[in-house]
Amino acid sequence: MPEDKPNEGKSGQLVTETVISDAGPEPTMKLDRTPKGFKFAGVRCGLKNKRNDLGILFCETPCRAAGVVTQNQVRSATVDLTETVLKNGNIQAIVINSGNANCCTGVQGQRDARQMAALVAEGLKIDPASVAVASTGIIGQFLDMAKVEEGIKQAIPVLGDSPKNFMEAMLTTDLVEKQACAEIGSGSIIYGVAKGSGMIAPNMATMLAFIVTDANTSGIDLQTAMTRVCNHTFNRCTVDGDTSTNDMCLLLANGKSEEKIDEQTFEEGLYDVCLSLAKKIARDGEGATKLIEVTVQGSPHPEKIARSIAESPLVKTAMFGCDPNWGRILMAAGKAGVEFDPLQAKLTLMALGESHLLYENGSAAAFDPQRVSAGLKSDHIVITLRLGPGKEATFYTCDMGYGYVRINSEYHT
Amino acid sequence: MPEDKPNEGKSGQLVTETVISDAGPEPTMKLDRTPKGFKFAGVRCGLKNKRNDLGILFCETPCRAAGVVTQNQVRSATVDLTETVLKNGNIQAIVINSGNANCCTGVQGQRDARQMAALVAEGLKIDPASVAVASTGIIGQFLDMAKVEEGIKQAIPVLGDSPKNFMEAMLTTDLVEKQACAEIGSGSIIYGVAKGSGMIAPNMATMLAFIVTDANTSGIDLQTAMTRVCNHTFNRCTVDGDTSTNDMCLLLANGKSEEKIDEQTFEEGLYDVCLSLAKKIARDGEGATKLIEVTVQGSPHPEKIARSIAESPLVKTAMFGCDPNWGRILMAAGKAGVEFDPLQAKLTLMALGESHLLYENGSAAAFDPQRVSAGLKSDHIVITLRLGPGKEATFYTCDMGYGYVRINSEYHT
Repeated sequence: MPEDKPNEGKSGQLVTETVISDAGPEPTMKLDRTPKGFKFAGVRCGLKNKRNDLGILFCETPCRAAGVVTQNQVRSATVDLTETVLKNGNIQAIVINSGNANCCTGVQGQRDARQMAALVAEGLKIDPASVAVASTGIIGQFLDMAKVEEGIKQAIPVLGDSPKNFMEAMLTTDLVEKQACAEIGSGSIIYGVAKGSGMIAPNMATMLAFIVTDANTSGIDLQTAMTRVCNHTFNRCTVDGDTSTNDMCLLLANGKSEEKIDEQTFEEGLYDVCLSLAKKIARDGEGATKLIEVTVQGSPHPEKIARSIAESPLVKTAMFGCDPNWGRILMAAGKAGVEFDPLQAKLTLMALGESHLLYENGSAAAFDPQRVSAGLKSDHIVITLRLGPGKEATFYTCDMGYGYVRINSEYHT
Repeated sequence: MPEDKPNEGKSGQLVTETVISDAGPEPTMKLDRTPKGFKFAGVRCGLKNKRNDLGILFCETPCRAAGVVTQNQVRSATVDLTETVLKNGNIQAIVINSGNANCCTGVQGQRDARQMAALVAEGLKIDPASVAVASTGIIGQFLDMAKVEEGIKQAIPVLGDSPKNFMEAMLTTDLVEKQACAEIGSGSIIYGVAKGSGMIAPNMATMLAFIVTDANTSGIDLQTAMTRVCNHTFNRCTVDGDTSTNDMCLLLANGKSEEKIDEQTFEEGLYDVCLSLAKKIARDGEGATKLIEVTVQGSPHPEKIARSIAESPLVKTAMFGCDPNWGRILMAAGKAGVEFDPLQAKLTLMALGESHLLYENGSAAAFDPQRVSAGLKSDHIVITLRLGPGKEATFYTCDMGYGYVRINSEYHT
């Protein structure tokens, strides 16, 4: 989300998670190292009030790279620049700032983005064409390049193994840092960090997310893997249906682990990492009190119906109020523009390990509203709508409460 | 909006409005009579706590009729029944209830809707096939038909010229009654009433709206006029992007005024009435403090971009907070899936009679944020985004504040 707002998160620890099932709990996997060859730094240069706001991610050697960027027509100068870097095919460093999106900033914004890459390249003695740039924060203001330059100078000497300060430098309204990892083969690691809390919607290339791996990926089409995985993870995550102007997800592979990884193993690991990050973004949505997974089964376009439910303000406020208002879920499904027969639909809701059948055969099922409402106090709800035989899709979202309004109306440009 | 929530509105007066320009103020036109031949009644039968909840609209003679209904896949039994009545072509009475949507109620719901029509037809000694039925309120509960029957018995003897009690019987979370009229030719009247406050979105056939006229419309294709006018008025009105299951807009013409009206004059009058009602629905959106008109000019699909801005939670919360956060408006335009060049875009905001240029030539215009923020305290904001030469479309929406969350999360099924 490209706006810098006053929330300041807690500091992160290198306790990462990997995901085993879509609906189940996310088991915690302790990780004692990040992938070989990658260094991280984060410093405070003064673009924001309190937290770190400038970060650098660096690899000793140039990496094979892939990435996807926002599909918004209005996009940051950093998105344009990084897309050019991706076309070259190699990335050796990423420089990011929070507090300013460098978007709607015209020619000066483009110049500032190029200068960020040049300063990093100069300090690290690498090719400027291998430096990706990402910004997140308020739209429409020029970067204070004196502060950015000072930040880059401070960050380079403190590059090290811990991603903690780098993660903090990415955050805006996020309350928590978001990282995830998967171990593939015997000892190769895929590790990712992400930020995002508002201005989050599918049909994007996620918020800022950076995935690094030491896996030997020679022979694997990283761009195809990245696009396919994003479409099923970050692009199915929505907080408010508002697609950011600065979204970008980059994948860097340095091949330091010599073991050769096959395409399927790699893509599965990448999927686990991206799905875990997407769920963390939804759970940390602005003002959210719970993660909501919406699964629709048995439609030619289950993703359209799942998205319609996941973005419905009436569904999201009912979930905030712990109200088993299943009529709103049916309404949201019905407005998606995809035909189905409501008489064949079956709606269940899972919370606190208990499954509640709410609707089938065209009318309400016999359920105890008090009991379901008590279950909805859980911080993890799974809504499942079965429409018949056919395809399935899951979206990840959160509830909508007073906090969303507070964060987005009391904050002033 | 098909849910009965605790708000109770003020009583209405027969002070109606007609609309002269899209962006300007809505001049008040006093009306001392409704169209000839129509009678109204509203009573309290106990489906809701405090307000009237059952209404009947009746014409001495069968009327030529047209109408549009919700495009939601999940729809009320009353929508099915009224669609059948519309196919017959004549309507002589409409019976409505609030407090219960009679939706997702299976076979019993269909039986109950038919029984409502039959009871009205019996009491008024008219053909049951000429009785339209509309319901609004909670989804998924069976109607208490004993109360409905009692209400119909009470309402028929009190049918009279004033629409006040009928209007109140339509309301759910609405704070105010909504009526509008236009005089066409020399003395023919088009008069409309509507309800709606939440679960309001375009691509619908509006909330409940009933338009009656004594104009002589012989030779005019009422269905074509109704569809065309709805597409530019009710279908461009959005509170939360959630399309109701019970939407319906009906037009009844009894021809009591002998003067022959031409098609263009009639359609212009119908447009004025429907546009005024659509604006009143947006202005009375759940929790709203202001009416917001979003006009997009110069795109092959201006309506898609206007809708995207009008439905953006980030734009709506900024407007609630009186924050001239133009970056969010550009973001919302850019995510609509329609190509445009942000460098050619020009964004202005009009409030309290003053026009503020916020963005042009790819970056911020020189404006005084304090002054614009003060203007945004107005209860009527006009956002205009010019993208180049080409078509234009306007959407009608409201801001989003704490009230929307309160109404929709503290209300329990």
